[in-house]
Amino acid sequence: MNPYEYIDTHRDAFLEELIELLRIPSISTMSEHNGDVHRAAEWIADHLKTIGMEQVEIVETQRHPIVYAEWLGAPGKPTLLIYGHYDVQPVDDPEGHWKSDPFEPVIRDGNLYARGATDDKGQTFAQMKAVQALLASGEMPVNVKFVIEGEEESGSDSLYPFVDANAERLAADLVVISDTGMKSLDEPSIVYGLRGIVYMEVEVRGPQHDLHSGTFGGVVHNPAQALVEILAKLHDEQGRITVPGFYDRVIVPDAEERAELAKTPLREEQLRRDTGVPQSWGEAEFAPHERTGIRPTLEINGLVSGWTGQGTKTVLPAKAMAKVSCRLVPEQDAEEIYALVRDYVRALTPPTVTSEVRLLHHGRWAVVDVKSPEMQAAVEAFEFGFGKRPTFVREGGSVPIVGKFQSALNAPVVLMGFGLQDDNLHGPNEKFTLACFERGMKTLVKYYQLLGERA
Amino acid sequence: MNPYEYIDTHRDAFLEELIELLRIPSISTMSEHNGDVHRAAEWIADHLKTIGMEQVEIVETQRHPIVYAEWLGAPGKPTLLIYGHYDVQPVDDPEGHWKSDPFEPVIRDGNLYARGATDDKGQTFAQMKAVQALLASGEMPVNVKFVIEGEEESGSDSLYPFVDANAERLAADLVVISDTGMKSLDEPSIVYGLRGIVYMEVEVRGPQHDLHSGTFGGVVHNPAQALVEILAKLHDEQGRITVPGFYDRVIVPDAEERAELAKTPLREEQLRRDTGVPQSWGEAEFAPHERTGIRPTLEINGLVSGWTGQGTKTVLPAKAMAKVSCRLVPEQDAEEIYALVRDYVRALTPPTVTSEVRLLHHGRWAVVDVKSPEMQAAVEAFEFGFGKRPTFVREGGSVPIVGKFQSALNAPVVLMGFGLQDDNLHGPNEKFTLACFERGMKTLVKYYQLLGERA
Repeated sequence: MNPYEYIDTHRDAFLEELIELLRIPSISTMSEHNGDVHRAAEWIADHLKTIGMEQVEIVETQRHPIVYAEWLGAPGKPTLLIYGHYDVQPVDDPEGHWKSDPFEPVIRDGNLYARGATDDKGQTFAQMKAVQALLASGEMPVNVKFVIEGEEESGSDSLYPFVDANAERLAADLVVISDTGMKSLDEPSIVYGLRGIVYMEVEVRGPQHDLHSGTFGGVVHNPAQALVEILAKLHDEQGRITVPGFYDRVIVPDAEERAELAKTPLREEQLRRDTGVPQSWGEAEFAPHERTGIRPTLEINGLVSGWTGQGTKTVLPAKAMAKVSCRLVPEQDAEEIYALVRDYVRALTPPTVTSEVRLLHHGRWAVVDVKSPEMQAAVEAFEFGFGKRPTFVREGGSVPIVGKFQSALNAPVVLMGFGLQDDNLHGPNEKFTLACFERGMKTLVKYYQLLGERA
Repeated sequence: MNPYEYIDTHRDAFLEELIELLRIPSISTMSEHNGDVHRAAEWIADHLKTIGMEQVEIVETQRHPIVYAEWLGAPGKPTLLIYGHYDVQPVDDPEGHWKSDPFEPVIRDGNLYARGATDDKGQTFAQMKAVQALLASGEMPVNVKFVIEGEEESGSDSLYPFVDANAERLAADLVVISDTGMKSLDEPSIVYGLRGIVYMEVEVRGPQHDLHSGTFGGVVHNPAQALVEILAKLHDEQGRITVPGFYDRVIVPDAEERAELAKTPLREEQLRRDTGVPQSWGEAEFAPHERTGIRPTLEINGLVSGWTGQGTKTVLPAKAMAKVSCRLVPEQDAEEIYALVRDYVRALTPPTVTSEVRLLHHGRWAVVDVKSPEMQAAVEAFEFGFGKRPTFVREGGSVPIVGKFQSALNAPVVLMGFGLQDDNLHGPNEKFTLACFERGMKTLVKYYQLLGERA
């Protein structure tokens, strides 16, 4: 049986296995889920053994384990390092937007709904299944190494030193990652650029404890007010970030690159339909797809102060906190941006309160050479799997490990991503389209065959 | 035994009873405490019977009951309506600022610590005990009616129609309320002015559900950002409120009144010591005690959006909410101020998001005539109880029912308050100083004796 037939005849079994994996609430940012995260690592390790991988190992770290496995039975052929992550984003759903339990996967209208369905359990699973189909067919064209981590959603703190310490063991001709997406099933694309990230916590403190807003209102600077006054000054009226020096290292791509990117525009109507916003927003001098692709941002991811429950409480809060993150583009440096934001917040803080900006995590942006033979083979594989030549796009999200692999392993990275723009990763009702799952597996099989043939 | 001796000999028993009342977590704004609120009403009613009050009734309402009682055995003497409340503020203490359980009262260094210790269970209890001492001594100089409600901390919605519907039954020559405070034990003062309040919820909505901040950051207006931009525009750099028309009806007291108020200044050092703020804040053209007394405010009481838990979540939140309240002064109108804030927020809302301002509750400011015979008797009573002539002050807090009693019963209101500035009402470690409790009871006994003598 050839690998494509193998995928076709094992469709239901594959789906059942994936559902089993998705049931594990492996939320890496929340310590109460540490046991679940470990359980997911064990599931991945067991599964890698089942499909025929060798040297399978659960590498314990300071936090969540990394699963490693390899199959090196194709001497003389290229060696691929396949990276994925088995941890997922938290579920924060006080208003009940999820139509079904995020950890009890269900199939509706050709989509599989669950937290992690596409980011990144589903896509990592597609990689494992493509390798399984090739191994089972006896036609494995390449050597593979798997590195599947459990801290991608919380900063990959353990992976970085692991990669540095194991550069020889992880040595590969190419790193392949399935953790990105495309606009729609009919508009296949390959991500060649990812934004970096720096995630911070901004805290403003006033009185030592909460005060009565009647007794002290008017004479004590309300930390919530001081915080909103500081945060409001981080953008100007045109939506540009005002942090001094923020844009200094930003490279605007040349006209040729911008023309290629313009082939996959982000249309106002689709944005409104997909998100429900009344109108798009952002820097007027850049097209919408450029604002999410080639431009950096500064977002408030969270905000909390004082009384947020039902009804009223006439409190003048002791402190106010915001989670703030920046998406970064070439050649911005995450630690430098953190320092710029920290210093600017400090400069904006009035003497009536105190403030602190804490760095929670950061990761580098990445850009992949679209003219490399690996990228050209990826284009052919996508054309085979999706029936249409893919465009090149820059994604707004961050997979900071891309930059790390490029530098530590000195290997090119190709992003073979099969998510869709409306998959709602990190939000409620995250899904993986079954057609993406199937086409993804076949695209990967084709890709590995092409890489093997051309070696 | 005269009433003063009665108080001295019953000190421990009184304290035990008060501790029993303080153990009931009668938080009126939180529906899960409805049973506790009712239990507190029953406790109050039982206690009023115990001390010798008649016609004791628990009046059920749409929400929390009102306790009524009367003693009219002094014909020809003045009739007082004594108002208090048995409900308390919520406890919101994620960081553990409370040194002991807010509903397990403890005595430390001459203070009784508990939620409601001073606001207003302790002060209402002092009223009951003063009446008990007078009744027990056989020297009751006035007639009294008690109205003790359970919704003061959530807007007194049931009390207003109750007062209107029972104006005849509640008819009184004077209304006495113990729900205010003074600066310190050595600086007795009588509050003759209270600020009004209007409490609102401001909500900004963007996308229908939370989005991935990487995928959509830069092209979707972040509702948390839009909210902070709106809120930051509600004050100017000088701390003045920018809502158009906000100050139009504000009356600045004349020089004589301001000179009297200046006798009880709010000193910068004391404010820093009591609250821990690095520096005071507010309208430079008014003294600190004026900023909390004769000037209106606009405060952010709460703020929430997106991810507020541990660690990071790269979410672009669907919405952001703030609790905002204004303290009002003569002749501001609460509903008009709500409309002004609502319209201004609407005007500030960009087309990229939507916003809504909801009115949660409001209450009128009040000013009492300091030259009336009732106020002059109060001055003598305080001088007796605290050994020093009290000054007249305006308090920043709100007891909206004061204005209601003035208008509905056509009776003067006198505020016999025994809290201290550092009692931390509405915050953690709320306390009632035992000396205030004792002096308060004796001041009230003297006050009622003076009113009876002069009738």
